[in-house]
Formats: sequence, C-alpha cells, structure tokens
Amino acid sequence: MPSYRAPVEDTLFLLNDVLGFHNHANLAGFAEASPDVVEAVLNEGAKLADAVLAPLNRPGDVEGCTWHPDGSVTTPKGFKAAYDAYAQGGWMGLSVPEAYGGQGLPHTLNTAIQEFASGANLALGMYPGLTQGAMAALLVHGSEAQKATYLPKMVEGTWTGTMNLTEPHCGTDLGLLKTKAVANGDGSYGLTGTKIFISAGEHDLSENIVHLVIARIEGAPAGTKGISLFVVPKFLVNPDGSLGARNGVSCGSIEHKMGIHGNSTCVMNYDGATGWLVGQENRGLNAMFVMMNEARLAVGVQGLGQSEVAYQNAAAYAKDRLQGRALSGAKAPDRAADPIIVHPDVRRTLMGIRAFNEAGRALVLWTALQSDIVHRSEDPRERQAADDHMGLMTPVVKGVLTDRGFSNAVEAQQMFGGHGYVEEWGMSQFVRDARIAMIYEGANGIQAMDLIGRKLPKDGGRAMMTFLAEVQAFIKDNDEDEVLKPFTAPLQAGLNDLQGATMWLMQNAFTKPDNAGAGATDYMHLLGLVAMGYMWGRIAKAAVARKAEGNGAAARMDAKLVTGRFYMERLLPETAMRLVRIKAGADTTMALEADAF
Amino acid sequence: MPSYRAPVEDTLFLLNDVLGFHNHANLAGFAEASPDVVEAVLNEGAKLADAVLAPLNRPGDVEGCTWHPDGSVTTPKGFKAAYDAYAQGGWMGLSVPEAYGGQGLPHTLNTAIQEFASGANLALGMYPGLTQGAMAALLVHGSEAQKATYLPKMVEGTWTGTMNLTEPHCGTDLGLLKTKAVANGDGSYGLTGTKIFISAGEHDLSENIVHLVIARIEGAPAGTKGISLFVVPKFLVNPDGSLGARNGVSCGSIEHKMGIHGNSTCVMNYDGATGWLVGQENRGLNAMFVMMNEARLAVGVQGLGQSEVAYQNAAAYAKDRLQGRALSGAKAPDRAADPIIVHPDVRRTLMGIRAFNEAGRALVLWTALQSDIVHRSEDPRERQAADDHMGLMTPVVKGVLTDRGFSNAVEAQQMFGGHGYVEEWGMSQFVRDARIAMIYEGANGIQAMDLIGRKLPKDGGRAMMTFLAEVQAFIKDNDEDEVLKPFTAPLQAGLNDLQGATMWLMQNAFTKPDNAGAGATDYMHLLGLVAMGYMWGRIAKAAVARKAEGNGAAARMDAKLVTGRFYMERLLPETAMRLVRIKAGADTTMALEADAF
Repeated sequence: MPSYRAPVEDTLFLLNDVLGFHNHANLAGFAEASPDVVEAVLNEGAKLADAVLAPLNRPGDVEGCTWHPDGSVTTPKGFKAAYDAYAQGGWMGLSVPEAYGGQGLPHTLNTAIQEFASGANLALGMYPGLTQGAMAALLVHGSEAQKATYLPKMVEGTWTGTMNLTEPHCGTDLGLLKTKAVANGDGSYGLTGTKIFISAGEHDLSENIVHLVIARIEGAPAGTKGISLFVVPKFLVNPDGSLGARNGVSCGSIEHKMGIHGNSTCVMNYDGATGWLVGQENRGLNAMFVMMNEARLAVGVQGLGQSEVAYQNAAAYAKDRLQGRALSGAKAPDRAADPIIVHPDVRRTLMGIRAFNEAGRALVLWTALQSDIVHRSEDPRERQAADDHMGLMTPVVKGVLTDRGFSNAVEAQQMFGGHGYVEEWGMSQFVRDARIAMIYEGANGIQAMDLIGRKLPKDGGRAMMTFLAEVQAFIKDNDEDEVLKPFTAPLQAGLNDLQGATMWLMQNAFTKPDNAGAGATDYMHLLGLVAMGYMWGRIAKAAVARKAEGNGAAARMDAKLVTGRFYMERLLPETAMRLVRIKAGADTTMALEADAF
Repeated sequence: MPSYRAPVEDTLFLLNDVLGFHNHANLAGFAEASPDVVEAVLNEGAKLADAVLAPLNRPGDVEGCTWHPDGSVTTPKGFKAAYDAYAQGGWMGLSVPEAYGGQGLPHTLNTAIQEFASGANLALGMYPGLTQGAMAALLVHGSEAQKATYLPKMVEGTWTGTMNLTEPHCGTDLGLLKTKAVANGDGSYGLTGTKIFISAGEHDLSENIVHLVIARIEGAPAGTKGISLFVVPKFLVNPDGSLGARNGVSCGSIEHKMGIHGNSTCVMNYDGATGWLVGQENRGLNAMFVMMNEARLAVGVQGLGQSEVAYQNAAAYAKDRLQGRALSGAKAPDRAADPIIVHPDVRRTLMGIRAFNEAGRALVLWTALQSDIVHRSEDPRERQAADDHMGLMTPVVKGVLTDRGFSNAVEAQQMFGGHGYVEEWGMSQFVRDARIAMIYEGANGIQAMDLIGRKLPKDGGRAMMTFLAEVQAFIKDNDEDEVLKPFTAPLQAGLNDLQGATMWLMQNAFTKPDNAGAGATDYMHLLGLVAMGYMWGRIAKAAVARKAEGNGAAARMDAKLVTGRFYMERLLPETAMRLVRIKAGADTTMALEADAF
C-alpha cells in the first residue's frame, strides 16, 4: 500500500530561507502569515493530506465514480467525508478574501497545500481545486451580487464549482464552440449545448454545483471574439440564498479514463439552462485566460505532487527490497542480498526525481509568490514585474512540471520491476493519474505555443529579458564563491543556451512562424531547465548560509547541496540538446505532404 | 476504434534493399525464402495481424482474463479462435526446423511477424510468443526425447509454453530462488515452490501447457551456480504422446495489471509437480541465458510494435481532427479549421516517432539476421561475428526500443488531447500495454548493466570495436556523397560521442565499477542512438539507389530521406547529452547515505 508524507520541512525551507516569503509583509494577508502561522498551516494541511486524503487514493482508483440513469454520480466510498473534512478545515477559502468567508492568507500557502492534496490524492483534490478555480474567476470577473451569492457557499464547501469549456469538436480551438446562449429578457440567458470532459461536473459531495460555462450569445461574432462566460448553477438560487428549482443542466455520462478514476469526468448537457453573464459580453475568453494562469499553475503543481509521492514510495522500496550486491562489495553481508538502493542505476533514478522535485517546488512557490504580488501589491512597478514573471513561467510550470512529473512517476514505477506493473502496489496509479496533467488546462504543446507565441514576444520580450538578467546577475554575484562554483558554472552554460535559443528565434521565427512552432516544446523545456537550475543556485546559496548558522540542519543542507550538484551535472546539460533541436528549424519537420503520413 | 496495418512495404524494403537479406542463401532455410516467398509470408502475416488480431485488442483489454476458483483461467472472447487461426496458419513454427513440424524459414521472418502480432495485439501475441521462447530453449538444451515429445505439439499450437523464473522475493537476483527439486529416483524430479508473474501460465487456448521452470536441486550450491532448468507439463504426457494425469502445478491467482489485460499473468504453485531436467544439472541459468537473447529481441520488437500502432493512429487522427489554423496561413480555408497535422508541434511529434520506428525496425531485422547467422552459418568466423553483434545489440534492442516505444506511445496519445485519456479511443491502452515491455525479460536497468558489465568488456571489447569500425567504415565510404552528407556528418559526431564514452568507461570504470553503473542507462541509449543513426545512413544510401532505379518508389524514398534527416537533426544529437552524463561519473550519484532518501 503506497503512502504519502507531505513535504512540510522542504516547503518551509524554501519559503523562509530561499524565497524570502516573510519579506513581503507589505502585501495584504502576509503580515498575518507570520512564521508560526505558516508552519501551523502547513502542518495542519499535511495532516489532512497524509491521514485523510492519501489513504483513499487507491480505494478511490479501484472503485471509481458511478453514473446513474437519473444523471446523478456517486463518488468512491469515503470521498464525501474526506471532502467535508477538507471544507470544514477552512482549506477551500485559505486565500479567499475574508469578505467572502475566506482567510485571506497568501495564495502561496494555498499553492503549497495544493501540492500536498495533489500528492496525496489527485482525484479527490480536484474537487476543491476546481472550486477554487471557479472562485478565482468569480472574484475577478463576477458582479458584487454574484460574488455575494456564490462565494461564501463555495468557501464553506457546501457548493462546488466547475469550468465548462471543451465541446466534442473543440478543445484547443474554442473559437469553434457551438453552445448557444439566448437572452431570456430578464437579465438571464438560456444555454443550450453539450460540454465534454467536465471534471467534477456532477457528484455527491456538495448541495449545489456552480458551473462556469462559455457559450456564444445569439448573434455574437463567430470565432473567439463572440464567446461569453456564464454562471449556471445546478440548482437555481432563491433571493434568500436557499436552493430553488433544478436548472436545465444534467450529466449525460461519465468517461472511462486511464486514471483519476475518483474524479467524475462528465458530459454535461445544457438544455435551455438558466445562466447569468459573468463579466462583459463577448469577453468570455479573456475572463477565462485571467483565471487560467492560476489554474495552470495548479496543474503544474499536480505534476509535482505525483512526482513527489512516486519518489517517496520508490525510495522506501529501494531501501527495503533486497536484490543483488553492490558493485563495490556487499553492503548488507548478513542478509541474503543488499537493498537495491546500493545500485548506482537505482540511485541515479532516485536522485534525478528528487533533484527535479526540489527545484520544481521552488519554482512553483516562487511563481505563486509572484501571483500574490500581482493581486496584492500596491506598487504598480512591482505588480508589473510579477505579472511578467507569471506570464512567462506559467506555461513552463504547467508544461515542464507535468511532462517530467509523469516521466518521473514512470521512472519510480520502473524501480519496482514487475511489482510496479501490478495495480496492487499503487505505482501504476501514480503514472496513470499523472498522465492527465499533461493534457488538461491546455495540452502541453499548447503551453509551449503560448510561451513562444504570446509570452515571449509580449512587450518586446520584456519578461524574458528580465529573467535572463536576473539569472545573470545571480551568477555574477556568486561566481567567485568556491562552494557555489559547481552551481554557477553549469548555470552559465545553461543560460547561454537559453540566450542562444532566444536569439535564434528572434532572427528566424518572426519571418517564418513554423520555426517557432517546431521549436516550441524544446524551448519550453529549455526555459524550465534553466529556471530550475536558477532555483538550485538559490537553494544552494541558502543551504550554505543555513549551514553557517549552525542550527543543526547541516545534514539536510549537505543533502541539498549534493542533490543540487546532481541536477547541475546530469539534468541541466539537457539544455544543449534542446538548443540544437530548436536551431534545426522547421524545414525538415514540415517537408512531407500530409498524405505521406 | 483504433486500427492497425502491418508495415509490410517497409519491412520488404529493409530486407531487400537495406539489409541484403537475399545475399544469405548459403544459410539453411534462406534459399527457400525467395523474394516471392518472403513477400507472400509477410502479406499473409499482415492479414492475420490486421484482420484477426487487431480487432480483438481493445475488447481484450476491456474484458481481461478471468481466474476461476478451480484454478482455470478464461481468456477474453475471441482469443481462442484467433489463437487457433494463428496456430493453423503455421506461424508458431515458421522458423522451427522441419524435423519438428516447422517450416524452417529464417528467424528474421519470424521477427517481422512478431512485430506485426505485437503491434496488432500485444496481449494475444504473447501466448504464441512465449511458446516460441520455450521452444527455443528446448531446441538448444532439450534431449532428443524431449524435443520429440514437446516440439511438434507446440508447433501445432495444441500445446503452449511458458518460462518460470521469478519468485516473490527474487526477480533480477535469481540466485535467491527457493523453488526446490527433489529427485524421484526414476529420472524425474518433484518441484515445489511458488513462481510469480508467469505470463500465459494458465489459460484456455491449448490442451496442455509446457512450463520451463528453474529450481534448485536438493543439495545444489547456493546462488546462481545451483540452478537447474526443468520441463514441467500441466498434464503429464503418456509414452504414446497422449495426455495423462494432471501434474501438481496450478494457478493460484492472476494479477490485476496496468495493461496487457488479455494476457494472464499468473501465480503458479508447484506442489511436488513432476518435472524433467533440461540440459545439465546446475546449468539452468546458462540454458536460460542462451534463450534470452531471442526472448529479449522479441520484447524489443514489442516496443517497436506499440510505437508503430500508436503512430499510425496518431497520424490518422492528425489528418482528421480540425483545430486551429496553420501558422503559415489556412490550409483548409473551406473548413471550420485546419487538420492539426498542419501544426509544427504535431508534425514534430509524428516525425519523431516515425524516424524512430523506421530505424528501430531496421535495427531489429539486422539483429535478427545475425541470429540466423549464429544458428545457421557453417563458417565459424561468420558465426562469431554474428554472435558478437547479437550479444552487444540485444540489450540495446530490448532496452532502447521499449523505453522509446513507450514514450512514443505517450507522445502519440498526447496528440489526442482529452480523447487520448479516455479508454474508448484506444490510445491509453497502447501506453499501458507498452509499459510492460520496459519491465519484463529483465528490466531495462538490467539490460544496461548487462551491456556495460558483460557485453562491452567481453573478449577485450571485440564486439564494440567491430561495431565502431563498421560504422566508421560506412562513413568513410560515403562521406564524399553530397546527398548522404546530412547523414554521414551527424553520424560521425554521434560515433565520436560513443567512442568518447567507451574510452571514458575503459579509463574510469574498471577501477571504480560504480562509474559504470551510474552511466549504464545513458550508455545503452547512446549506443542505441548511434546504432539507429547507422541504420538511417544505410537506409538513406539504399533509398538513393532505389530512386536511381526509377521504379516508381521515388515519393516513398524521398519520404525516407526526409525522415532520416529528421532523425539526424533532432534525435541523434541526444548522444552529446548522454556522454556528459556518463562522464559525470558516480561520485554525486552515490554521495548520500541511504537514510537521506
């Protein structure tokens, strides 16, 4: 039976020692998030994840969700009680403003808790996760009345939320959507159409489900410029806030999927369902995209969560399973064989996953901190810089952390040999569950296109130039430090590759966009590698400082330095390969006629 | 519903134009394999794969195998009829000597058919596949009486075969095995113990099941030097060849696995089961290892097969699914959107899989041809060279083709977006099924250790030196040809990396074996990349020659040249990264104490 232990210690180290979380007391909610409060919040969140969510992970996978002919959906046994514990612990509204019943704490903390929930039980964690996504959209784009109607109930957890974008014939290309909205004349609209792949579209966890739905108002322009966002509750809400009539939306079926069996993925049928416009008419995609940064960040965190739990179980197995002898001589001569962790190929696997996880976590928390600055700073310059960072790093966090989160889960599974392939051991589920994060909230190829086509050229490349300068400045400030040299020297090489790739794209992609498209995925990974390399540089610097304080964390800090060196020696050099591929351009890639495939 | 079309045309091109299959008429069975016969065999095999095996792939996954309390196992509906068609078509004994009822044709052809069967239906194809593995062991190590008793029935398909190695506490480290054999005094032995992960251990496809089992004879030395191989039929065989009493072996349960649901993975309980020694006492592992080259080659072929079927379905989807517009302007302006094959990131994915598949297929057939030479040549020098090649390339074919076969299936699945995650579309099954090939027949980390620890240093590195010289000679012979320059120049760079890595290991691994272990997986992939690069060089040369013949295959040959250039520009440069990782050595990898994980 697999287990999970939320990485509280590492998260605290990153917030306190690496990212200077407590230097942001000027931001709303940060003063309240004192070191004691942060530690208490993380420890409580860890308890929930480890003891309540994680034990339901495999049972939820085995049982899955059940659709009934009346359109209702039953979640796996225990999910309702666990969901209630989640809601009653106040986790849903951790970073929602107090005006709506939330705690107003930094989103950074919420992001840390999202990692814990995702690592413990991805399928279950998605129900509150989607509710948080829907709340974020309402917070930014909803009217005061809408916020007052929906948010407090969602913060309580008595109502949950969803996002309805995809239709059978359109996922990425939402301009093709067909769901229609017709004005009812009373300010509301009647929505008709079919949405697919709606996570948590129907279930038995909450009294009401608040669907955010994109649709085209009758007579609106074709394409993406004619899309509006609506709020469509499963049950209409009476003026006093109580539940009224059942709305014309129902779940037609649920999908049989590779993983996340505990989450209901629904076909939602809208049959003249009553909805209300959220934000401006025909500006629905813009409303969605604002929310998407955080939703995509949350999906990147899911990749990290699955990578972490897969690592933990693989490490435990490697210390337990006896097989073969160390190449350098028996390490457990009194036993029938050595534990497999003595084998360099097993170590390589574990070190690789770990080196990724720790830097990935730093990148996630750093980016979440920028999200707090965007929403809470009163300094427009600070807000802009943070917004630049968010725009640039969101596709990287989403695309790279889920690509590698999945491949790490596969590597961890591999260490179990045949046992990894047998469902009973739980490693297969981590792989199957992690797989979805590469797909939803914009498939990773779309993330790469978003990065290279939108985020990179935006404002004359300001965000990327700022990032490159920041990493360069870090190297310059530290390259005389002998202890940090194993970090700064490889980081410079990676940075050079990133600069080279950026330059090549500037020279070759504007005149021939296919050159950007053919290099997009490699560029996204190249940026991710360098961003995580930079994180390792900062982690190493903090570890050295922490050791110098001599407060007993020396062994843990030494492990950090070793793990970071592994990243620098083995993972970061991939940048050179990414650069070569980018520079290969699009000619060969696009040379064949479609018929040749 | 996914579909499959066996790559007959490509296989014929590789055999006829690239590998010079028909130059080996001196080998037994090759004269019979005239061009017409080869084409007919492949076309018939393709019909079976496309029309009989492939349609059962998804139904077999959904239904899976069923274990009954009496120890019997039911395979999915339709499997029995398809298996019978396979057997009655004479496929089981395609390359088995005629003396035992086979057709005595080259194993190379059998390997091509194995790819077709694996691509069409991996779970179903494993039943005959394991029978062929068991037959191979009996052919080499069985007594004349054993061969006469078992082989004709297995060739007919009325009896199937298995290999029983793994036990709950030992997979890789077979020296730990506990299954005991006690001499009965009549030449037979009584076997007692538990074997796990026995593919096709029990099922309803054949009248009898011939288990090859490794066990320790009472009093034999501990470790690997005390292991013997036995043949243990499910039903004892009477002197007249008819079935006798049920033997003391039974299936205790079957595993619930991530994939290959249509194949029964059994726990086999031996309770004083009667068995007969195959080959010499205490030489069971050697007997197994001889057979393993071909079994591992067959598993590598499974990786290729899954990669091919995933590619075919992804290519079809990419031409059909409308989403977005080409960056270079609409390609289907009369439709709502362009087919996604216009997008460079989609093309990159398809080209990458295809470039791998075509070179992988060449590597497989080239290696299978060496296996024929090993078993059929009368020239000891030729046999030795072929044996060297087999030893060196077997772990590469197994490890690299299954690692990348799996990751290719994942990439193909990704192109389907959310549909790829839904089981109905079939892409998830390719991923789940392909996953096992990385694990069984020696997990890929073990393949890497076998390569670097055994095959590479064997006979003073003769096999590797020969391979390096062969590739170098090819480059030298062709580097003045302008058309081939895009192949020879990158191949030289890859070869240099391989030589550099080999040199580094010679200098650093003998004194410190951990340096070999820490670089083993990277070295295996490095060799695989160069071997496939070499295949592309030869394919390109053959394509140029074929075009010059002007016999109407120009478009197909041009596509070959484009695909090969894609490999050279985008995939082969990975060698540099592999070299950097190898040279990083083991110090950082092994630096942490086990407790730190």
